[in-house]
Parts: sequence; C-alpha cells; structure tokens
Amino acid sequence: MTQSSRKFGFCLFIIIKASILTNKEMKLTKRLFSNLQTLTPSHLSYFRSILPPNSIQTEDLDSYNTDWLKEHKGCSKLVLKPQNTLQVQEILKYCNQERLGVVPQSGNTGLVGGSVPVKDEVVLSLKNLNKIEGFDETQGIVWCEAGVILDVLNGYCSERGWIPPLDLGAKGSCLIGGNVATNAGGIRLIRYGSLPGNVLGLEAVLPSGEVLSDLKALRKDNTGLNLKQLFIGSEGLLGVITKVALLLAPKPKSIQTSFLAVRSYQDVVSLLKLAKTQLGEIISAYEFIDKDAFNVILKHTPRTTNPFDKSHEFYVLVETSGSNHEHDAEKMEAFLNSAYEKGIVVDGTIASNTSQADNFWRIREGVAVATRKEAKDIFKYDFSLRIPEMYDVVLECKKKVGKLGRVMGHGHVGDGNVHLTIITENGKEVEKVVYPYLYELVQSKKGSISAEHGIGLFKQGMLGYSKDEESIKYMVSTK
Amino acid sequence: MTQSSRKFGFCLFIIIKASILTNKEMKLTKRLFSNLQTLTPSHLSYFRSILPPNSIQTEDLDSYNTDWLKEHKGCSKLVLKPQNTLQVQEILKYCNQERLGVVPQSGNTGLVGGSVPVKDEVVLSLKNLNKIEGFDETQGIVWCEAGVILDVLNGYCSERGWIPPLDLGAKGSCLIGGNVATNAGGIRLIRYGSLPGNVLGLEAVLPSGEVLSDLKALRKDNTGLNLKQLFIGSEGLLGVITKVALLLAPKPKSIQTSFLAVRSYQDVVSLLKLAKTQLGEIISAYEFIDKDAFNVILKHTPRTTNPFDKSHEFYVLVETSGSNHEHDAEKMEAFLNSAYEKGIVVDGTIASNTSQADNFWRIREGVAVATRKEAKDIFKYDFSLRIPEMYDVVLECKKKVGKLGRVMGHGHVGDGNVHLTIITENGKEVEKVVYPYLYELVQSKKGSISAEHGIGLFKQGMLGYSKDEESIKYMVSTK
Repeated sequence: MTQSSRKFGFCLFIIIKASILTNKEMKLTKRLFSNLQTLTPSHLSYFRSILPPNSIQTEDLDSYNTDWLKEHKGCSKLVLKPQNTLQVQEILKYCNQERLGVVPQSGNTGLVGGSVPVKDEVVLSLKNLNKIEGFDETQGIVWCEAGVILDVLNGYCSERGWIPPLDLGAKGSCLIGGNVATNAGGIRLIRYGSLPGNVLGLEAVLPSGEVLSDLKALRKDNTGLNLKQLFIGSEGLLGVITKVALLLAPKPKSIQTSFLAVRSYQDVVSLLKLAKTQLGEIISAYEFIDKDAFNVILKHTPRTTNPFDKSHEFYVLVETSGSNHEHDAEKMEAFLNSAYEKGIVVDGTIASNTSQADNFWRIREGVAVATRKEAKDIFKYDFSLRIPEMYDVVLECKKKVGKLGRVMGHGHVGDGNVHLTIITENGKEVEKVVYPYLYELVQSKKGSISAEHGIGLFKQGMLGYSKDEESIKYMVSTK
Repeated sequence: MTQSSRKFGFCLFIIIKASILTNKEMKLTKRLFSNLQTLTPSHLSYFRSILPPNSIQTEDLDSYNTDWLKEHKGCSKLVLKPQNTLQVQEILKYCNQERLGVVPQSGNTGLVGGSVPVKDEVVLSLKNLNKIEGFDETQGIVWCEAGVILDVLNGYCSERGWIPPLDLGAKGSCLIGGNVATNAGGIRLIRYGSLPGNVLGLEAVLPSGEVLSDLKALRKDNTGLNLKQLFIGSEGLLGVITKVALLLAPKPKSIQTSFLAVRSYQDVVSLLKLAKTQLGEIISAYEFIDKDAFNVILKHTPRTTNPFDKSHEFYVLVETSGSNHEHDAEKMEAFLNSAYEKGIVVDGTIASNTSQADNFWRIREGVAVATRKEAKDIFKYDFSLRIPEMYDVVLECKKKVGKLGRVMGHGHVGDGNVHLTIITENGKEVEKVVYPYLYELVQSKKGSISAEHGIGLFKQGMLGYSKDEESIKYMVSTK
C-alpha cells in the first residue's frame, strides 16, 4: 500500500522530478542534485529562529532516513516538524532560496522509497500537523491537517457515524496527507471509489512558500481548472499538502466477512462476477491470496488461525458493508449458496463474530510483514492489469524465476490490482532474471507498473513502461 | 446541467482562457482576439483537402452559432465535423498555424454559453466522433469516442447490465465528451460520485495537434501526474477530448421512486438526513423543487400530472437503485413510515409503476424548459452551498427582487447544489438588482458561483467570486 508523501521531486529547485524521467534524462537530475547546498550551522540557526525547539531534530534520525522496506538509507542531518501551515511556508521558502534539498515525509510507510532522503536533504515531517479542524455531519465531510494518522481519523469519524473512504494495512501509522499525495488505493476502493472522487479540497504549500488553498469542500464546483486533482498522487512533485477535506462514507451498520477457497484463478474471477451480481451495492472488499502467500502468512503472522482443514489453491476474502443487517445477511447467504451450487467455491466460512472477521483480515494484511520474514531477499511489485489476465503475470514470473526463488500473488482483484512478491536467498541472481523482464511483460499487457505504490525512488526511470512519450513530455511541461 | 464542450479558451493561440480571467485581465483577451485571422477561401480549400464533403458545413449554421438559452449568437461561417482523431489533429494543427480561432462544440446543451463562437471562430463539432469502441464486462468499463450521445451510451451499457455513472436532463442530446470537458454533475452524483472518480481514461488532442492518450482505463495507476484529471471540467482550455474510458455502475435491478411534500426547507434537510440513514447505500437521487417552480412546471410541461390534491411549500423526489427488489421496497417503506411518524412528510406517494415514476421525473426535469415559457426574460443560477444554508440564497434573492420578478429554487440537495431561477418581464431592471449582489452573497457564504454549469462565456470574469487570487494565478500558469 502507498501511504507516505513521496520525495525527491521535491528537492525544491530541481526543475524536473526524477520519477517522471526516463533513464536517459536522469543524468540531468544527478547534475542538478550536485547543485544543492549542504546544511550549515547558519541554516540551522535560521530554523531555530522560526521553529520551537521540539520541531527540530538533529539526532536519532535513523527512522527518518530509512524506508519501510529498509532498502534505502539516506543521510539527512536534520528533521523539521512544523506545527502549522505558516511554518511549512517559511521552511520551504527558505530552503528554496538557500538551495537546500527537502524531502516531505508523511508516515514513511510507502513501498517505493518515496519518503526518505536520497542523500542529505532536510526531512520535512508532517506528523505534527495533526489537528482535525472541522466536520459536516449533514454531508459527511471532514477537514483536517495532513499529519492526522488514518486510523485516528477513522476513530474520529466513526464516533460521528461516518468512515473515511479508504482503508489500508498501514492505517495505524500512515498519515492522510501522504495518502492523498500518493493517491493511496487500498482495500475498499471497489466500494467507495478512488481519492480523485473523494478529496473535496486541499491546501498545499508551493516551493515558493505560497499557499494554494481550496478547502470549501463543495461536492460540485466547476469554476476553472480543478487544480487539487493535480496534487493527488503527485508524490510531492508540485508542493506539500498541508490540509485535506475528505468526503466520508456512512459508517456501515452491518458488516459480513467471508473467507472462501476456490480451485483456480479462473474461479476467483467467476466468483467476483457472481459477487457483483448478488451482493450488488453492499460489496466492500474482494481480495485474493494464492496458496504460497497464504502458507507464508500463517507461518509468520501472530494470532492467525487457518479457517480451513485442507489446503487450497486460492483464497478469497469477501466483505459486505451495508445499512441493514437482515438484508445484508440474506444477500451474503444467497451469494454463498449460488457459489456452492455452481461449484465455484469448494470450502468457505462466514465470520460469525468480530474476532473471526479480524482473523480473516489479519491473514489478508499479514502478507507484507510475513513475506519479509520468510527469506533473505524480497521483491515486491504492484501491477494493474485486466482482471482476467491478472494472475498470468505471476505464473509467467514463476516459470522465469524457477528454482531461484518463490513467486506468489495476492491483491485487490476487484480493482485489477495484483501484488506480486518474490522471496529468495539469492536477490542478485533473481534481479537479473526479472528486470526488465517483468516491466516489459506488464507493458505488453497494457497494465501499469505501479497501481497504488507510486514511483518514488525505486521506480525512477521506469515510467516509460506505463506512460507514452507524449504523456511524459506533458508531465514535465506541467511541472 | 452542463453538457457541452465549452469554448473560447480554445481559440488556440490565445494564451490565457477568458474564463479564468478577472475583469481587469479580460482586456488582454480582447486584444488577443483581435489578432485572430478571418476565414478565407484558401483556408476552406485546405479543409476540403483533408476532410470528406459531409464533414464540412458552411450553411444553416444557426443551431451551431446559438447557445441553448438563446442568449448569445456567434457568426461562425464554418462548421467542421471530423470523423476520427487524426482529422481533429489536422484541423487543430492547421488552425494553430494559421491563427484561426476554434471553438469545440459537443451537444451545445450547456447553460453558460460555453460551446458557441464568441465571434466568427470555426466550430469544431464532435458529433461525428460517435463510435463505441470497447467494453469490459468484468469491471464495467466502456471506451467510446467523445461524440456519443449520453442516452445512446446508456442504452448500449444498459443492454450489457451496466449504466453510465451520470444522468442529466439533457441526456438525449448532450455528448459524453462534453460531459467530461465540463465535469457534468447531474442527478445521480449522490450515488455514483463525480466524474473525477469515474473517468478512467481519455484521449485529447492538444492545440499543437499532438495527442495525449491515456486509455488503458486501469482503476489504479499511480505512475506520474494524473494528467487526465486536468482535462475534466477544463471546458476546452487545454485541448479537445476525443475519446473517453468510463467506469460504469451495475444496472440496478430495482428502482423505487417517491414524490413527497414537506412544509419547509428545514424539513427538506431533516428528510435528507433520515433518507441517508434509512436508505443507506441504495439512495440514488434526492431532488427538491419549491412551490413556485413546481407550479410553473405543471403549467407548461406536457404529460405531467400533479401527484397531490393540495398545494405544498416544498417537494422532494427520492429515488433508490438497488440489487434486490424486496429489500429495497422494505427500506423505502420503513423510511416513509419514519418520515410520517416524525411529522416531516405531510403527503407523499411511491410510484407503483414506471409511468408514475416517469411522471415524477418529467416534473423534476421540466424546470428548465417550463420556466423559459413562463416569462419574457429568465436568469438561471447554479450555486454550490452548505446544505443547511442552500435555500437562504433563494429567500434573500426574493426579498431583493421584490415585485420585479419571481424567484424560485430547485436542485440536487444531496450535493449542496441549488438552481435559482428568476423569471421576469423586466430583465434589465432585475439585472441591475441581482448583479453583482447574488455573486457576492454566494461568496460570503463560501459557496461556488458555478456548481456544475461551468464558466463558459456568460460567467467570464466572475471566477474571482469562487476562487482566490493565488489559485487563479496557478491556473493561468498551468495553462
């Protein structure tokens, strides 16, 4: 999942963001990087003059310098934690003037190294911008600062009868501003739609220190270019998001969760069609896990129990969220009966209480951590593909990798989003085999090489696999 | 409703679009306009060399020169109707080189004069780009050219079990490309969300003739800036949309329509809250009409019958769309029972068949045409406001206009979108009274002066009432 503000483009006076460059153009970025100034005591005294002492950190910076996957470590000497928009403005304006590189950092839970310094840039942590500022109970809109933790926001809204329109594994530590900056998708996109449809307003500070504010949060407002859309998923390229207005979804009164086993990926797809027909407007998640991933999860994830006696080829988690328990239960039951009758589902269980449902979700969300524990090296991919072809990439990759490692898949089937994981004791060999093979494969199938994780640091120069030249040119000119 | 490609900004080499200018800056546009070339026989022969004869029209151009409200008439001498993207490219490239003004025109059903020539620009009609090119039945995605009529698209999708995620009064003549170019809202936004969440891809021809194509239509694709979002609602400012990929909604198996009467606008809002709680995920429209508008509609709209014996202050149309008739009927009944018990609804009826439901919708959609028949002059406004304050603007306007005219309101309550109409025999006097009063009023309430109709020609220079200076500056620099 993508959860944190991405970096790099935001080395302020670098004219073009690395992640929208082709390999050839990256040389230019390297040259620009060499023009950045190094932090001096005089810079530090300036920051001390505009920020309170607890907003400046110069020691114990490991967690700020290291990405979630621990694949990259920067060497920033300074973390700034502004407490309001004005301080963000002052910081950016000064860094821009002084040619100091800046990397905005949200929850730092992203999977593409987008929120850590490449070298020694100043880290601008948004975590102290954590106020919830307003709430509209008639329409279900919340206004808050960028540094509010998604799960905290969820708690606040939930008490008032609403929920945020997105949910992801990292909700306990990712921040809403980073969610927006990286256009986080997550597990309930199938029901509540994407952030471009749900972000009603935002405030962002531009590199110059100027503020772009559009926080009226009107559901309809056709007056001029829809600038806020540019910031959603821009990974810090255009500015730092400081506030967000979000359209909420009514808190469901009834949630049904089932965990099902099927024989083949084809049956995963058939079951999805059936679920869409029979569960209609209440379906809120449709997630799959293949056998290999399932076994690794159960081995390494605390407090999980296998819902099945036997082993199966594919597992599907189906969740519904609705407003009427009786109706929802009837729909779920009718769906499962059809699925059994048609022979699509071979085994399955409906959670009869919250702890059973929590177990199902712990299994689903355990993939990221469990696979890291299983082997020395890990490769994680995040592809968008046509649903019927989604698993082909996993199968073809298995063939290619052979005995060098284990290839497994899981993901958000309903959104056409597969997470492919390779675990191996021999990372260097595997890398040679799968790069650029996998990206070319996805390109040939007209997919995206980054469905929800973004480009960040790790996928720099790979944009060409998903976007054509004209689009990349237009991105550069927009920037 | 906004349905047609807007114009003006697209006088290709005009650097800045008029609609994002303040009054002061409009002088600049006028000067730029004077630099446009007039159509010559040599231009015409060029067009004849690249287009088939039936794509060129030089006579009977009234319907292309006149906007839907018949408030503005341009004097274009040439309408081009390209049949594919390549022809659009050639036309734009040539016009750009020759400094010929171009106005892209979709269904020409917009209400702000955005799709008609200001003077004698060439009209680029998209109506012959009318092919539906692809369909994904697993995810519910349709690919089509920009000139497909919304209702035709609806028919095509409907046969396959899906519906477009938007619906509006002009569906019989508006084109999907214009819907996207103007970010059309319409009557089912409350259920299916806005176009930024539902447009999965588009193809657009830039003024230079180059093509920007992003038609993979992946639900998740975080690779670089989300450029397509810039085109949604840009009213032709950045280019001409030629193709669209749209996320569809499952075709409902059950539709319930009720028409209710309440005593006050406050009760309209209370009823909305109740509807959201009790109808939950199946609510698909919540529309209101005040007494004055209702009476005008019934007087002038063919095939409508009054569902009530007595007259009431406010009327509400509530629609649900769901997947299970029994469940939906139960929910609607429970909602109405609560509404009666709480004394919110004073009278009401549920459509027991399609023809009754059609009558309700004819009433709701009859406003635009009926009000035009009622008096000599008409003023139509389209505001976004906080829901509880939405009707205050109508009341305050009534006071202000007094006996000079009749002020009435209707609209999409669930989206905070009110359409205010003034009908009068004395347009000039009314104009003096309401302008700029009404815009200032909406500004003071932090609303938008154009919820869904856009800026177009009629609201040029009024952007400052809805957007701050910094935003306008950023729009201009983006352009």
